[in-house]
Amino acid sequence: MDQKLKTYFEKKSVRVDRYLDRLLPPEGRYPSSIHKAMRYSVFAGGKRLRPILTLAAFELCGGRGERAYPAACALEMMHTFSLIHDDLPCMDDDDFRRGKPTSHKVFGEAIAVLAGDALCIQAYEILGRYRDLPVVEVVSRALGTAGMLGGQVVDIESEGKEDIDAKTLRFIHVHKTEALITTSLLTGAIIAGAGRADTRRVTEYGRCVGLAFQIVDDILDIVSTTESLGKDAGSDVANKKATYPRLFGLEKSRQEARRLADKAVKIIRPFKEKGQLLSSLADFIVERVN
Amino acid sequence: MDQKLKTYFEKKSVRVDRYLDRLLPPEGRYPSSIHKAMRYSVFAGGKRLRPILTLAAFELCGGRGERAYPAACALEMMHTFSLIHDDLPCMDDDDFRRGKPTSHKVFGEAIAVLAGDALCIQAYEILGRYRDLPVVEVVSRALGTAGMLGGQVVDIESEGKEDIDAKTLRFIHVHKTEALITTSLLTGAIIAGAGRADTRRVTEYGRCVGLAFQIVDDILDIVSTTESLGKDAGSDVANKKATYPRLFGLEKSRQEARRLADKAVKIIRPFKEKGQLLSSLADFIVERVN
Repeated sequence: MDQKLKTYFEKKSVRVDRYLDRLLPPEGRYPSSIHKAMRYSVFAGGKRLRPILTLAAFELCGGRGERAYPAACALEMMHTFSLIHDDLPCMDDDDFRRGKPTSHKVFGEAIAVLAGDALCIQAYEILGRYRDLPVVEVVSRALGTAGMLGGQVVDIESEGKEDIDAKTLRFIHVHKTEALITTSLLTGAIIAGAGRADTRRVTEYGRCVGLAFQIVDDILDIVSTTESLGKDAGSDVANKKATYPRLFGLEKSRQEARRLADKAVKIIRPFKEKGQLLSSLADFIVERVN
Repeated sequence: MDQKLKTYFEKKSVRVDRYLDRLLPPEGRYPSSIHKAMRYSVFAGGKRLRPILTLAAFELCGGRGERAYPAACALEMMHTFSLIHDDLPCMDDDDFRRGKPTSHKVFGEAIAVLAGDALCIQAYEILGRYRDLPVVEVVSRALGTAGMLGGQVVDIESEGKEDIDAKTLRFIHVHKTEALITTSLLTGAIIAGAGRADTRRVTEYGRCVGLAFQIVDDILDIVSTTESLGKDAGSDVANKKATYPRLFGLEKSRQEARRLADKAVKIIRPFKEKGQLLSSLADFIVERVN
């Protein structure tokens, strides 16, 4: 990772974590099991990619101060909600995530379902405070059946099938992963009060890096060890998941991720110097190893 | 049920159903399994109590026109979301609800979890449109761990325990059921632009009927047959659930429900003639048989 980007990530993620700590109910509050479960998954060592995208887009579009932090944290809570439910035995049945046992392994299935629900609702309570801006609607569209949940449904229904085509695979990736990544950026732009052209650029950048991010995820599932990945490596193959490498092979998948990152860099070029951070971020997303 | 109230329920629920049909994604939209599952549970024959409470409070507080319908429908979607997740094998493990097989029995556990999530998010998308009013925040507080989800956690953790005290039982009922009922009324009052005194009255009325509703639910689980109830009768006893009749006996539970309904009627009295509907509704909630 580029040194400037690394410093940015470190600085912002400390601040995001401080906000998350303040925005989540305290662990000791009754009934404490659910509050423990919410915090366990939120503080399980995520990269904070989505909130950092929100903050970067906010600043790129001229936003100043800390107004985007609560929304950025809400998007991280939404992401965590989706992970907890995805990992459930009735879904992907994953035992590890970010090197730690998944929520249902620690707290049981019932609390895991409810902790996911509670993170979603907590996130909306925070987003609801931006009443002058359409963030609740924008985030809802990205999460609902026309977005993330739609992708998750097709992903699950494609599992074990031999004949997934490129169109279906693209549908899954675009909806399941790209939608929330793009919306994290879009939310930052909206809070900054960005104009139409900047909003469009940031959104198109999101479409590219969001899809690239998921392609790289597919690749890492194959080439990494469970240890370096922090979750069960090879689980896509074991679950006969629809993935880019399965359909196109590793080399072509790598090329496609690279092509998307280059496109993202090009889209952000009109921002000149100010766009440097998102430029490096696009490269990082393709070059990351976990 | 009082004839006037019956006519009101019939008229409003037809209209609520028409709005629900318009607000939910069409069944044929890809991926259709989740849209089918969302509609299956929403149109499984609920009483529409919560949306009707929203509409009644809206009108009582001087609201005119149809502006409260989308919010009323969102509250019914939230209620349905909670039922789908409550019925899951890892929660109450119920096979029937409103006389029909539960969502996970028809669509499988994965789609049931996602359909619940999707109804929650769809509801928020609708509530997010009331940007001049604090409905997203108010509903979130009622649903989160300081409300419905908190009640659900304690309910599940109390299951099978022999020594549930009255305080814990009250916590479960107030949070799991009363919070959303009160908020359905409060949302109607907010959309009507109610003043402080009316808002307080409507909220206090909700606290009484909400708790009375759950006590009657507990009683019906014991005295009804599965057929008349539409869900597994006796399941509270089988699951060793914390209920009013278990702690206080049937007769005392009936008296408490009656006392709360009478209190609700008294609270609503300052509305005079206009409060007649909510008065009858309080009586109905105690006298209902399913």
